[in-house]
Amino acid sequence: MNARPVSRVLGTEQFSLRYEVVDSDEAAVRSIVESTGFFHDYEVDIAVELVQERLRRGDASGYYFAIVEQGGSPVAYSCYGPIACTADSYDVFWIAVRKSHQRHGLGRWLMELTEKLISAAGGRRIYVETSGRPDYLPTRNFYERCCYHKAAELPDFYAEGDAKVIYVKVLARE
Amino acid sequence: MNARPVSRVLGTEQFSLRYEVVDSDEAAVRSIVESTGFFHDYEVDIAVELVQERLRRGDASGYYFAIVEQGGSPVAYSCYGPIACTADSYDVFWIAVRKSHQRHGLGRWLMELTEKLISAAGGRRIYVETSGRPDYLPTRNFYERCCYHKAAELPDFYAEGDAKVIYVKVLARE
Repeated sequence: MNARPVSRVLGTEQFSLRYEVVDSDEAAVRSIVESTGFFHDYEVDIAVELVQERLRRGDASGYYFAIVEQGGSPVAYSCYGPIACTADSYDVFWIAVRKSHQRHGLGRWLMELTEKLISAAGGRRIYVETSGRPDYLPTRNFYERCCYHKAAELPDFYAEGDAKVIYVKVLARE
Repeated sequence: MNARPVSRVLGTEQFSLRYEVVDSDEAAVRSIVESTGFFHDYEVDIAVELVQERLRRGDASGYYFAIVEQGGSPVAYSCYGPIACTADSYDVFWIAVRKSHQRHGLGRWLMELTEKLISAAGGRRIYVETSGRPDYLPTRNFYERCCYHKAAELPDFYAEGDAKVIYVKVLARE
């Protein structure tokens, strides 16, 4: 894939970008996801497992990453990939910004970058899934600000009273 | 898990059941799924991959199987598993009956068996996904006869004009 940006200035801050996953990203991803205070331990473990799968199997894992660094230290990342048996549908599995770096537009910018990467890879429809619980309202608001719309809601999916909400964004054809 | 049936008579036919996956099931599953004439090659490959994952990783794969045999030869199977990060939701990934053995109630009986296995494992909600295409009407009818109801439909998910339909069944508490 060409033309993937390698750096970005947001306000007065300079960030660099990388798309190759390295061994130290296991710890970096764990640290970013834990810092949000938003996820159960078993969810954090799954975030790390996707890094491990990527390291073990490369593209065959189906997991692609965009990692945002500041001063050589990862501060945000997204993980996405094509959905098997679909023509051009993609999942964004994770998008997380270190707690200390939130509220500066980094998440929204990373989402836009991720959409460009998906588009360049031939993706057309992007799905994200999250919880319908009240404490996930900021997450759902984030997706809605990024122009995702609710495609479905599965009541009690995660647990009694904890629905799965599926958002979708259809990319314009280039 | 206790009390898993090991045999079953349907009409005048005697079937045996097994829950352990063996090496020869890679070929057996391929043969059953191909015989239906219903799946693309890449879908057949995925069915076989789940067998390989099961063989490689056991329960850690998250894939559980029920295999129906007649005279020592597999004629139908289901593949199911718990959905990560959910309290008690399960997916039924595959349920397939060899073409030559269809239309005798084997599929429906296998689905009921699979539900009992899921229930015994602590599952409460069962999800199945299929295509909204007209040629998948028999499949959707099958799920509806098994008392699954449509929970969501994602237009163009698989491809333009090819929706994903998500069915769910909520098991009664034992």
